[in-house]
Amino acid sequence: MPKVTLAQNILAVNEHVAQEIRQSLSARGIRALNIMSSPGAGKTTLLERTIERLRGRLGIGVIEGDVETSADAERIEAAGAETVQINTQGTCHLEAHMIRDALAQIDLAHVDLLVIENVGNLVCPAAWDLGEDLRVVVVSTTEGDDKPAKYPQMFAISQVMIVNKLDLLPYVNYDLQKVRRQALSINPNLHIFEVSCQTGEGLEAWCDWLGTFARGV
Amino acid sequence: MPKVTLAQNILAVNEHVAQEIRQSLSARGIRALNIMSSPGAGKTTLLERTIERLRGRLGIGVIEGDVETSADAERIEAAGAETVQINTQGTCHLEAHMIRDALAQIDLAHVDLLVIENVGNLVCPAAWDLGEDLRVVVVSTTEGDDKPAKYPQMFAISQVMIVNKLDLLPYVNYDLQKVRRQALSINPNLHIFEVSCQTGEGLEAWCDWLGTFARGV
Repeated sequence: MPKVTLAQNILAVNEHVAQEIRQSLSARGIRALNIMSSPGAGKTTLLERTIERLRGRLGIGVIEGDVETSADAERIEAAGAETVQINTQGTCHLEAHMIRDALAQIDLAHVDLLVIENVGNLVCPAAWDLGEDLRVVVVSTTEGDDKPAKYPQMFAISQVMIVNKLDLLPYVNYDLQKVRRQALSINPNLHIFEVSCQTGEGLEAWCDWLGTFARGV
Repeated sequence: MPKVTLAQNILAVNEHVAQEIRQSLSARGIRALNIMSSPGAGKTTLLERTIERLRGRLGIGVIEGDVETSADAERIEAAGAETVQINTQGTCHLEAHMIRDALAQIDLAHVDLLVIENVGNLVCPAAWDLGEDLRVVVVSTTEGDDKPAKYPQMFAISQVMIVNKLDLLPYVNYDLQKVRRQALSINPNLHIFEVSCQTGEGLEAWCDWLGTFARGV
């Protein structure tokens, strides 16, 4: 079964690099966050709003993962965080060696929190450890309330689920209770935040929690 | 480079199976459609509305691909098409051998059009030929107007782009012209349909086009 063996080898190498990253960041007092979602759930906008709110309280560095373009990195830099763009050029997820290379391009002296925005994909990124301390999955009210059940692995490996686009709830058929229930049945320890990046609803609670996670303050 | 060689072998085997499927369906006068999108762009709802409109004009068989659950297959059967569910159990896309196995479970005698709903993923399915005659990518107005530029391969290999959720345009920041322009710059031959599965807007044009594609009527 060469396919399986090779996949295991690749994942074992990835795990090794991820552990090195985790130890290296930990030694510098930096905590790392891996944020994942479908394309278009609002990761980049959430990150913009989060950086604006935490600026002055935390030093934030960002690694942006996209198949193509540097549009997201430009948005995040404008929000005030040092950013490195990774273009995977076809690969559907980030891998630990990409993070290692990107970290060499960030001045970590003033970074307390490293945020890694993964490629928009609710399946593949779940299998790849990037050396993060926290995994966040973002879903949105416009993408249907069946996502935890249909993509369970992503919810099983995350510690936080953020439900975004609360402002669009009146216009869509989306059962928040059902999503909470589905997600918690897969992962009873999941922290859940419900936000709108348009109105700001819920962002304070999320940013306070993240600030506490990052600095214990 | 064992990784690349192996990947090429796997894709070559997939291509071989896909060609067998294409020839076998063609010999029976059946045309096949592979529909792809991000999770939650509305593939299943589009398919429900399409089947309702084409029922009586075309015999439609459906293969539903999901990582987990058979919820979508139940919805499609309720809409009136014979359906087989494939659960990939972790795999992020459908492959041709899965389609071959699923076809063995469908009575093709009355099928004119075979619709394959791929796993919700804007990256990986683009690399896997399933033996289809037509590839359709669905995007939606709630997922941001940068998707063709950020995920170009999917738009390069598709013949049709459907922009869904037109009814939510008043509530989101989405530039239809920009999406059309981006998509056509990647693939100038793309047929574009703009629809709302909630209001029905644009569905008649899409269904007429698909009916013509499937039967020449």
